[in-house]
Amino acid sequence: MDRLIDAIERMHNPSVVGLDPTPQLVPEPVIASLHDEVADTVEDEREIDAVQLAMAYVVFNQVLIDAVCDIVPAVKPQIAMYEALGPAGVDAYAMTCDYAHERGLYVVGDVKRGDIGSTAAAYAHHLSGVPALPGTRQDTASVPNRYDPWREDAITVNPYLGVDGIAPFVEAADACDKDLFVLVHTSNPSSVDLQELELGSGGRLYEHVAGLVETWGRGTEGAYGYSRVGGVFGATFGADAAALRRSMPHTMLLVPGYGAQGGTTDDVAGMFDAEGRGAVISSSRGIIGAWRSAPERQASMGQDDALELVAHSARRAAIDMRDALDQASSR
Amino acid sequence: MDRLIDAIERMHNPSVVGLDPTPQLVPEPVIASLHDEVADTVEDEREIDAVQLAMAYVVFNQVLIDAVCDIVPAVKPQIAMYEALGPAGVDAYAMTCDYAHERGLYVVGDVKRGDIGSTAAAYAHHLSGVPALPGTRQDTASVPNRYDPWREDAITVNPYLGVDGIAPFVEAADACDKDLFVLVHTSNPSSVDLQELELGSGGRLYEHVAGLVETWGRGTEGAYGYSRVGGVFGATFGADAAALRRSMPHTMLLVPGYGAQGGTTDDVAGMFDAEGRGAVISSSRGIIGAWRSAPERQASMGQDDALELVAHSARRAAIDMRDALDQASSR
Repeated sequence: MDRLIDAIERMHNPSVVGLDPTPQLVPEPVIASLHDEVADTVEDEREIDAVQLAMAYVVFNQVLIDAVCDIVPAVKPQIAMYEALGPAGVDAYAMTCDYAHERGLYVVGDVKRGDIGSTAAAYAHHLSGVPALPGTRQDTASVPNRYDPWREDAITVNPYLGVDGIAPFVEAADACDKDLFVLVHTSNPSSVDLQELELGSGGRLYEHVAGLVETWGRGTEGAYGYSRVGGVFGATFGADAAALRRSMPHTMLLVPGYGAQGGTTDDVAGMFDAEGRGAVISSSRGIIGAWRSAPERQASMGQDDALELVAHSARRAAIDMRDALDQASSR
Repeated sequence: MDRLIDAIERMHNPSVVGLDPTPQLVPEPVIASLHDEVADTVEDEREIDAVQLAMAYVVFNQVLIDAVCDIVPAVKPQIAMYEALGPAGVDAYAMTCDYAHERGLYVVGDVKRGDIGSTAAAYAHHLSGVPALPGTRQDTASVPNRYDPWREDAITVNPYLGVDGIAPFVEAADACDKDLFVLVHTSNPSSVDLQELELGSGGRLYEHVAGLVETWGRGTEGAYGYSRVGGVFGATFGADAAALRRSMPHTMLLVPGYGAQGGTTDDVAGMFDAEGRGAVISSSRGIIGAWRSAPERQASMGQDDALELVAHSARRAAIDMRDALDQASSR
């Protein structure tokens, strides 16, 4: 987890920008401008809209990344938004991760994967990349022995399958200097359905999962004392965040749900440790959709003006968030 | 769920073949034969191995699909195996689903997705496809108004996020005559870590989830009385499968873990209802890897002979499984 924490320290900013585009969040002229180019290259006419949107997401994300990469340490693309467009969307997801990586950002792939051991081992290639086939060209010194098609520095993982669905990710993370974040308590209203169930042994399911997550990371702690296995904890969690922080002293918290989903600086203040570390707060719509309520927005804007508005508004919102979190983390 | 049950009835075969390729399960000459073609078309040399394997998976799957499509009702590609290769693998996954669909098979996409409501709604496009952009070419009568890039008839879903992470899938399934299967009790050893936790209110977590799944499907029951929301229940589940069957009278069970993972016909017999319906049993390695222990296997085989062995062995294993399940489901 050191690479993420180093980046947070460098920027004095414990925040991550969620790159979760939707057709509504991308200015219409950006989408429209891609039609002719896509129509010329796509063979199957039915694919045009999906590919056009996917390419628009890449353009939109690149503008956002350029706008914030010197002030935020990390981005978190949510793969669901891309999968919604089919394989073309998945290409756009990988291109987004790659571009963010090139601009020096730590990339959290919000993929929430999870399966039985042998299948989790396949998903763990998100972190470890594709090994070279024996005896092929790639198995030489001229190119790296592993090809990393996803370019994620960390991914999110679902705990429902238990430890043998987690262990392959921990192993891959440890081998490749990467990390994972396991869902503990999510930011949605029906997180209560399972996560807040009272257990026979006392405590709630999410508290049990929190304990497991703290255990699963054991032995992978870095320079700041945090392990490679973080936990996802929604900002809208009402209960005692500070008690939770104390119960998971080696677990970095990834906190979605700030901003548009209702989480405030008060909600997240308790998630930081005494040094102001130990949590990274994610906001998506509040940053990438800031242009829609910007005072400079005009009814009819060209593509260039629209993208400039996107960049300017996102940067302003990211700075506001940084400054708000700076106060929260030092309480 | 009627389309799946109709297909099972037609084939007298409550089984599904898991299309979960790995580099070891595909005969080496099949992979090697694709090298030159891939090397000629891929721009980035580092991608060659991943694309070559992905294309080999498609060839392998097509041979398997051709070999069994007249005797099994459904296939279940596990997307993790494809994601392990990056976006090129995801293309291979979609091509596999498309080919299976064209050959008349019901396709269960084993994707185990799950997220908060708004994100689950994005994942639900796996079932509902990509809507046309307003005012574009696709928004006309000449092409369908929704493009379906994934071609899945059902997908698997993770319940950890609760009902608002499930509802968008149910809605999409109902609108598009598709289905979903929610994880209840998985086939791996550490399913005990969360799923078998004793609850304060009595019973175990998986039993609580089973009850939720039965509820989530309410109102979507088809001609056979089964709803669009099935449950995933590992064949290796030791407890009383018949009691579980009775407690979820409207829930179709998808049962992985048969064969190579250790599940037997005795284990699954209780999962069928009095009419021999209500469960579909999945086997992957036992079918698609049958060629590796076939008596006809020779140390050195060419690509054509190897693929013929794959086809022949898979068909024989699928027939054996069908006959074994025919007895189990009529007990």
